[in-house]
Amino acid sequence: MEPLVSPLPIHGNSVQQRWLSCCSLRTLQTWIPILTWLPKYNLRWLQMDIIAGATVGLTTVPQALAYAEVAGLPVQYGLYSAFMGGFFYCVLGTSKDVTLGPTAIMSLLCSFFIEGDPVYAVLLTFLCGVIQASMALLKLGFLLDFISYPVIKGFTAAAAVTIGFGQVKNLLGLKNVPRQFFFQLYYTFQKIPEARLGDVVLGVSCMVLLIVLMKMKSTLPPLSEEHTATVRAAHKLVLSAATVRNALVVVGAAIMAFALEAPNRHYFTLTGKTSKGLPPFRPPPFSEITPNGTIISFTDMVLDIGGGLAIVPLMGVLESIAIAKAFGSQNNYRIDPNQELFAIGVTNIMGSFVSAYPVTGSFGRTAVNSQTGVCTPAGGVITGVIVLLSLAYLMPVFYYIPKASLAAVIICAVTPLFDYHHVIQLWRVKKLDLVPFMVTFLVSFWEIQYGIVGGLLVSGAMLLYNEARPKIKVTDHDFLLMELDSGLSYPAAEHLSHVIYNHALLVCPPRSVVLDCHHVSRIDFTVVNEVRDLIQQFRLQNVTLIFSGLKDCLLEVFKAADLELQHTDSVEAAGASLLGNTHHDRGPVG
Amino acid sequence: MEPLVSPLPIHGNSVQQRWLSCCSLRTLQTWIPILTWLPKYNLRWLQMDIIAGATVGLTTVPQALAYAEVAGLPVQYGLYSAFMGGFFYCVLGTSKDVTLGPTAIMSLLCSFFIEGDPVYAVLLTFLCGVIQASMALLKLGFLLDFISYPVIKGFTAAAAVTIGFGQVKNLLGLKNVPRQFFFQLYYTFQKIPEARLGDVVLGVSCMVLLIVLMKMKSTLPPLSEEHTATVRAAHKLVLSAATVRNALVVVGAAIMAFALEAPNRHYFTLTGKTSKGLPPFRPPPFSEITPNGTIISFTDMVLDIGGGLAIVPLMGVLESIAIAKAFGSQNNYRIDPNQELFAIGVTNIMGSFVSAYPVTGSFGRTAVNSQTGVCTPAGGVITGVIVLLSLAYLMPVFYYIPKASLAAVIICAVTPLFDYHHVIQLWRVKKLDLVPFMVTFLVSFWEIQYGIVGGLLVSGAMLLYNEARPKIKVTDHDFLLMELDSGLSYPAAEHLSHVIYNHALLVCPPRSVVLDCHHVSRIDFTVVNEVRDLIQQFRLQNVTLIFSGLKDCLLEVFKAADLELQHTDSVEAAGASLLGNTHHDRGPVG
Repeated sequence: MEPLVSPLPIHGNSVQQRWLSCCSLRTLQTWIPILTWLPKYNLRWLQMDIIAGATVGLTTVPQALAYAEVAGLPVQYGLYSAFMGGFFYCVLGTSKDVTLGPTAIMSLLCSFFIEGDPVYAVLLTFLCGVIQASMALLKLGFLLDFISYPVIKGFTAAAAVTIGFGQVKNLLGLKNVPRQFFFQLYYTFQKIPEARLGDVVLGVSCMVLLIVLMKMKSTLPPLSEEHTATVRAAHKLVLSAATVRNALVVVGAAIMAFALEAPNRHYFTLTGKTSKGLPPFRPPPFSEITPNGTIISFTDMVLDIGGGLAIVPLMGVLESIAIAKAFGSQNNYRIDPNQELFAIGVTNIMGSFVSAYPVTGSFGRTAVNSQTGVCTPAGGVITGVIVLLSLAYLMPVFYYIPKASLAAVIICAVTPLFDYHHVIQLWRVKKLDLVPFMVTFLVSFWEIQYGIVGGLLVSGAMLLYNEARPKIKVTDHDFLLMELDSGLSYPAAEHLSHVIYNHALLVCPPRSVVLDCHHVSRIDFTVVNEVRDLIQQFRLQNVTLIFSGLKDCLLEVFKAADLELQHTDSVEAAGASLLGNTHHDRGPVG
Repeated sequence: MEPLVSPLPIHGNSVQQRWLSCCSLRTLQTWIPILTWLPKYNLRWLQMDIIAGATVGLTTVPQALAYAEVAGLPVQYGLYSAFMGGFFYCVLGTSKDVTLGPTAIMSLLCSFFIEGDPVYAVLLTFLCGVIQASMALLKLGFLLDFISYPVIKGFTAAAAVTIGFGQVKNLLGLKNVPRQFFFQLYYTFQKIPEARLGDVVLGVSCMVLLIVLMKMKSTLPPLSEEHTATVRAAHKLVLSAATVRNALVVVGAAIMAFALEAPNRHYFTLTGKTSKGLPPFRPPPFSEITPNGTIISFTDMVLDIGGGLAIVPLMGVLESIAIAKAFGSQNNYRIDPNQELFAIGVTNIMGSFVSAYPVTGSFGRTAVNSQTGVCTPAGGVITGVIVLLSLAYLMPVFYYIPKASLAAVIICAVTPLFDYHHVIQLWRVKKLDLVPFMVTFLVSFWEIQYGIVGGLLVSGAMLLYNEARPKIKVTDHDFLLMELDSGLSYPAAEHLSHVIYNHALLVCPPRSVVLDCHHVSRIDFTVVNEVRDLIQQFRLQNVTLIFSGLKDCLLEVFKAADLELQHTDSVEAAGASLLGNTHHDRGPVG
């Protein structure tokens, strides 16, 4: 057996080596991944990146406008948030597919903490970026490992329902519907009689159109060489239309609204006035002056945001890394989670200088990017330019975008996030994991952040319960054999003692025990102390406690504690030692 | 191999069986342990219990007066808290030795939450009792398993220093010294010039006397049959004096103070006026009227107590159960932790009807009880009666007890709690466990409750870190063999994947891997999902991932998830399968 590397940590370099490696090209490439691919950049890649970037841009603009509404901010803030990601992720990102920008879930999450105030939104972006970048620099990305799959899925499903249902009011043209889910549910249904015909017809038509285009895309037969040029052209047209369907629908709706607009006839609820042009480049606000002149200090603003400072950065990173991993796996490359964390952090910090609200990776747009064949993160630059151009020249046009069409875009974007297959799979594979899923899902409707926290607590409790109650298999030979199924740490000490007492010492006559520890890989002081007590009790009752299969490191711990431990390498040896002994617990018949 | 019992839960009865067992005598005996021993009660036991109970009573009265001062309450509250325990623990307790009553550590803990207000103290007692009794009924005692040994020891050591130093001001006769430890430290030293000579001389003398009596007791040679009657009598006298030394010292000091008292000469700081007689029996207060007439509602009072509602009940139970276990182990009987929890809960609930503050098991008095040969918990009844008699007839005498003598009693009682041997042992056995110890110890000086919480968080984090980063031993054969050292739960999924990628898939050419899972005893959905991804990656790169030694229950989980897993029972079989394969990773030379 030739050891390849010592057991973990796998990057077990000495300090000196690390210091040297800090300055190496490889380390530089780790922190600035563009250095890896830019030298190899070529025209073919450029062509593909332009096509993909432009396509994504046509999806980004309508989605950004729509998600700003979910976040409770004026529509232009969606666009302010949509371009920084492309530029900075191009330099710092490790996935060619991921596109950063406003997303439905992050918009919903932020809406709880910023309460419609852009000043809070921009400060949150800055702090969120600082926290994410610091986590990356401190290599704290491992904290994300504690968010389990059921919690993520439960949260996503609940967010999809919340966001989707939250748009029904816009689809129906209802006004003054509160944001909290249950109130929203109640008032939306109560106000159905107030629905505006124009909005309903337009909204439903947009949805139908989007669904048809989506279905067309997924059922489009693959092209083969037999097809004529006309068929090929038609195929390409359908595919393009389906890919930029959001832009098509929104532009179509806006044109219709413009055509039908008259001074005293409003068929549709429109987006209305937006501020014009590019956002100013300025540092994020560290205090706010309210309309009545009082100043809200930085500390007060931070306290107001509160738990958002933990949840927004974490969920943002989690969403983005999950997407990056999914597409990396699909397109056969490997991302660096810590670097992704850094890229998002920097994007958010820089975003706060152009009045962005927190961004993350968007699943839908990343999929578009991947499918249109993007080759490098440079596609994001093209997307960013398109967003900037829209901001500079198209803002007056946005006045005419009907809210119902944006609602249709959002509803169609979030519907796939609610995937009941997860529930079926969880049921089949591991029913117990339905508990954190359901807790996250249900509590999220009350307040989305409590849903995540609740799910985390439930998964954590389940994890700790397993630590505290390791399975102990008891079998009867001429002695009692107890096999520990896994580790032994302090919460399990009392339980182990309880089981041994109940089976061996509280019976009459008391029994000898062989404790098979070959699965045990660590031990702590609390356990050592409990073992000391057990050994003493066995001695008092004149029976034997033999440990078998303890690893060397554990034997050393017991030795350091001056415990006179009877230990054998195998259960067989322990059995032989017991049976050769005078203490036959149950006599020769057994 | 004949299986004795199925694997845990060891009380795996059916619901019906449980229901039947609920009504059985044994269950009744479990909840009311007096039924076990009362039928066997005899005169010899009664004699021993009276002697022990009376001796403990003589220790309880001075300690109760002293600890009330630690809790920041008038001295009579110490006695109000000291008798209920004897009566109810006699009926409900499972240890013959434990005596419930006010203790130094609980008094210190409570002082933080009640801020000298008896109304809060009594409400805290009631709520504390309700929480403890509910925990017992819901069988939540297992929560205590999460308080590790280093945390308990760190807390105890810090509490001993805080309590001991907190009495220095009384020993010196200083006034107006704040309670917070660091301020106390500063002001005590700053005010040393204001020390009162009488208090200093009396306090130091009392301490010397207590230490001499304690040393005499521990160095007393055992009696043998050769000794004369005179020697025996002297031996007994010394032993008795040493055992009731607290009472002797306090009574002696009080007599001296009474003798030296004159209208305008005060040599000593005295306890002063106390309310007379037995406490009224009435329900605990659920609101308070402040001196200026405003009413503090129940909710406000609960919010004011805050974290105390978690920490006081838990630490109280922990202290008592630890003591019960220690003496059970020494005197060879087994306690029932859940029933202990119930007994303390009921005692506190009933205590709140007689204006008690929260009680728990006292180490010192339990030791006295055990050493004077108590036979059943009935000794507590005698102790309770003595406390009641003191309340009824001795209160006017307490006026003359010098505070310095009580301070000496407390300092001598808590000194043994600060045991530096623990630090040495932790260092030798498990250095890492010094971290929670030191965190608890140091933070406790800031605020004692933060110390406990901090220690719990640190131990918890260490536990979770182990879960998240299981050791993976990588060795190189013709394939890579990775051996998982312990369980595999969701926080470890990403790490496992990372290690396998780095060693097998990101090298050129990619390597086949045998993952030895025979130590793995459980798995969850997050891990299954990560494994699905890994299998796909291995397939894409045309190398093999073989699992070896998976338990049947885990194989079933993978099967339910429709994973096409290559699995062999042993590493050897996996190796053979790989080598018989065409994919020799490294060629025949290896």
